[in-house]
Amino acid sequence: METKILLSENEIPKQWYNALADLPSPFDPYLHPVTLKPMTPPDLAPLFPMALIEQELSPERWVTIPDEVRDILAMWRPSPMYRAHRLEKAIGTKSKIYYKYEGVSPAGSHKPNTAVAQAYYNKKEGIKRLATETGAGQWGSALSFAGMLFGLKVTVYMVKISYEQKPYRRLMMETWGAEVFPSPSTKTNSGKAILAEHPDSLGSLGIAISEAVEDAATHDDTHYSLGSVLNHVCMHQTVVGLEAQAQMKKVGDYPDVVIGCVGGGSNFAGIALPFYYDKVNGKKVRLVAVEPTACPSLTKGVYAYDWGDTIRSGPVAKMYTLGHDFIPSGIHAGGLRYHGDSPLISKLVKAGLMEAVAYNQIPVFEAAMIFAKSEGIIPAPESAHAIKGAVDEAKKADSEGKQKTILFNLSGHGFFDLKAYDDYLRGKLSDYEHPEEAIKEALKKLPKVA
Amino acid sequence: METKILLSENEIPKQWYNALADLPSPFDPYLHPVTLKPMTPPDLAPLFPMALIEQELSPERWVTIPDEVRDILAMWRPSPMYRAHRLEKAIGTKSKIYYKYEGVSPAGSHKPNTAVAQAYYNKKEGIKRLATETGAGQWGSALSFAGMLFGLKVTVYMVKISYEQKPYRRLMMETWGAEVFPSPSTKTNSGKAILAEHPDSLGSLGIAISEAVEDAATHDDTHYSLGSVLNHVCMHQTVVGLEAQAQMKKVGDYPDVVIGCVGGGSNFAGIALPFYYDKVNGKKVRLVAVEPTACPSLTKGVYAYDWGDTIRSGPVAKMYTLGHDFIPSGIHAGGLRYHGDSPLISKLVKAGLMEAVAYNQIPVFEAAMIFAKSEGIIPAPESAHAIKGAVDEAKKADSEGKQKTILFNLSGHGFFDLKAYDDYLRGKLSDYEHPEEAIKEALKKLPKVA
Repeated sequence: METKILLSENEIPKQWYNALADLPSPFDPYLHPVTLKPMTPPDLAPLFPMALIEQELSPERWVTIPDEVRDILAMWRPSPMYRAHRLEKAIGTKSKIYYKYEGVSPAGSHKPNTAVAQAYYNKKEGIKRLATETGAGQWGSALSFAGMLFGLKVTVYMVKISYEQKPYRRLMMETWGAEVFPSPSTKTNSGKAILAEHPDSLGSLGIAISEAVEDAATHDDTHYSLGSVLNHVCMHQTVVGLEAQAQMKKVGDYPDVVIGCVGGGSNFAGIALPFYYDKVNGKKVRLVAVEPTACPSLTKGVYAYDWGDTIRSGPVAKMYTLGHDFIPSGIHAGGLRYHGDSPLISKLVKAGLMEAVAYNQIPVFEAAMIFAKSEGIIPAPESAHAIKGAVDEAKKADSEGKQKTILFNLSGHGFFDLKAYDDYLRGKLSDYEHPEEAIKEALKKLPKVA
Repeated sequence: METKILLSENEIPKQWYNALADLPSPFDPYLHPVTLKPMTPPDLAPLFPMALIEQELSPERWVTIPDEVRDILAMWRPSPMYRAHRLEKAIGTKSKIYYKYEGVSPAGSHKPNTAVAQAYYNKKEGIKRLATETGAGQWGSALSFAGMLFGLKVTVYMVKISYEQKPYRRLMMETWGAEVFPSPSTKTNSGKAILAEHPDSLGSLGIAISEAVEDAATHDDTHYSLGSVLNHVCMHQTVVGLEAQAQMKKVGDYPDVVIGCVGGGSNFAGIALPFYYDKVNGKKVRLVAVEPTACPSLTKGVYAYDWGDTIRSGPVAKMYTLGHDFIPSGIHAGGLRYHGDSPLISKLVKAGLMEAVAYNQIPVFEAAMIFAKSEGIIPAPESAHAIKGAVDEAKKADSEGKQKTILFNLSGHGFFDLKAYDDYLRGKLSDYEHPEEAIKEALKKLPKVA
């Protein structure tokens, strides 16, 4: 009874899969945040290296992964795929459940898959420093790790409340040599302006983004780096799904359904897009995005142009959105609290080629506990949404008398999220569905795009 | 340039190596803590299942690993071996450095290798509950994980100061279903007696051991479980070294020196004993134990009979010791703060078949930082001692114009030890060599054994 399905180092994918080549209709262009006119590559140049801007809009289906990037990915890739025998037994299903485990990376999640690529292209373009924002710290630590390996300085604006409440993630970034500032900070004009008005501000991802963007835009040697949402980020994550395909093949199986949690969308994109390519080529496979009911962009948002950030300084994208000033409740899955979604994923959901489902956090933690007690791995609260999705797919199949093959992405471990488990175990969690009225209000503020 | 050397699941060892079969002189018997007469198996029966007592004293060189244990080990084993290309480059050595990484287990260290076996044999003997102590929490979380998988209840007495300062490790144990009490507790007479005298006691490993032992001894359905020191624990860890031998063979290499950190001795035993077997059979290989100067049992202790615990309730063993009431300073490598050492390792060091070296914590953290910044893995402070040992061996070889092959055991990750890195980065650490005088005083209290 084999538990782990492993690949050798030379089976790390040599190319990323770029789903832009296979969309059902052309990708809707990004719009300028002020003029609302389509953005051109030069508009993005102060923030990103040209190689990434090209990838963002590339029509090429397969993009070669540079050897320097593959060499670093080899520190933990190919990541293991597990057949979840113990989970199957624990829930008494006849279905087969597999999961891809991205928590084996040094930073503990899928995020380094793109952080390494982004650091590489920035280094190659002569950039000396990367600025970014981080909420709970997953992305900030991934970029700190990647920057360190390429000799780039990394500046992280960390939402102040997280900076104070989650010192371990901050310490991880500092250990890898990054400088971490609580945001709002006095390092930027955006930060100073907020502090002048709200000296006790606890910060938000929106504020932290504007600080990082300003830092990059005002320093020639500095670029900005984003950990999800964008096309090039989703593409860098396809190593996950490409490996999963090889691993499935190795055991002579193929998934009926592929599941991932969705905040900005990159880990779901990573596992699902290569299977989307199969689907385009005639394979029958369902692709299911799982989001929290507290931030239900795919299930209750609208598909429209909206700003990617709260203060309207970044590109405007066509996507599922709850409105750019939507404030989700403080659920523990901090990585899923984004008002929008990857434009790529949004387009495929809109076209009916991917599905979406939303869960409340208490049932998600129930599934996480079953998983931790059977498979032994304590999952990140974000990743636990995918577990809940997989468990429900299995139960549904059982109730229909079917045996399905289910694959999900376990995007990270929960070693830095044990406070959330403590709250769950002590009955301190509450469920939260964002009220329809609040969503309607937020949606009124969408840009008026012709 | 291959980074990871991986084995398949069917290459998990089928037998443990029992070094008792190959000692240079007979194993010195354990003595009763009160009578100081040799202990018999029935003396140990209230605490351990007969299968483990037999293993403790077995003359069999190879002991079959039960399938049920191998099935669980397969959740993370065989663990990866890495060729430390980036570390080699960072320190500019011509030597080849390999490390075996045990941090991939669900509990994050080598400890589950024995916890799973111990839970299995206890379950098989009809035991319902295991009691144990934990300091920083590595062992407690490993046993919680293993007990959960076999449906055993686990009670952990956690040193009160750690219980308060390291909530994450406690939460990990609770997530896996264990009950965790701050020690001294009101659950045992030992605990109550301490609290009556010192209501504000912050606890110690010695007190926690006596609480766990009392709990086990006074409940028929409960046994005690120990995470290091004993022969059967060291034997269960030999999967590490046996896999390392297979991995070395796979790349056509063989170590000149094998290195591990030593507290109770089990992770060093795990990697080193299979190579000791090679040595017995004529291979030339050095085996180096690395300990902290703050608790230098192998380098500054005496080889003598001493109690294994502070309050003299457990077996008396022939080992290197600093005296059973020796209190090491509060270094961050909490897992290395044991006054004695594995009797097996002690005997081999005494016989000149293994070596020992001691380092202060600041140079150890310097090595840990070089490692974190090159290999990307943030090591546990305990494991960082082995890194320092490996780096020094490489530098020594360079200064002698030689190229060596160096293998060390990276016994765990430092995700729960980032406070230690914070202290290091902020210059708050101090070095500490335990004064010769204090050691002399502690050694005066050894038992008078005929």
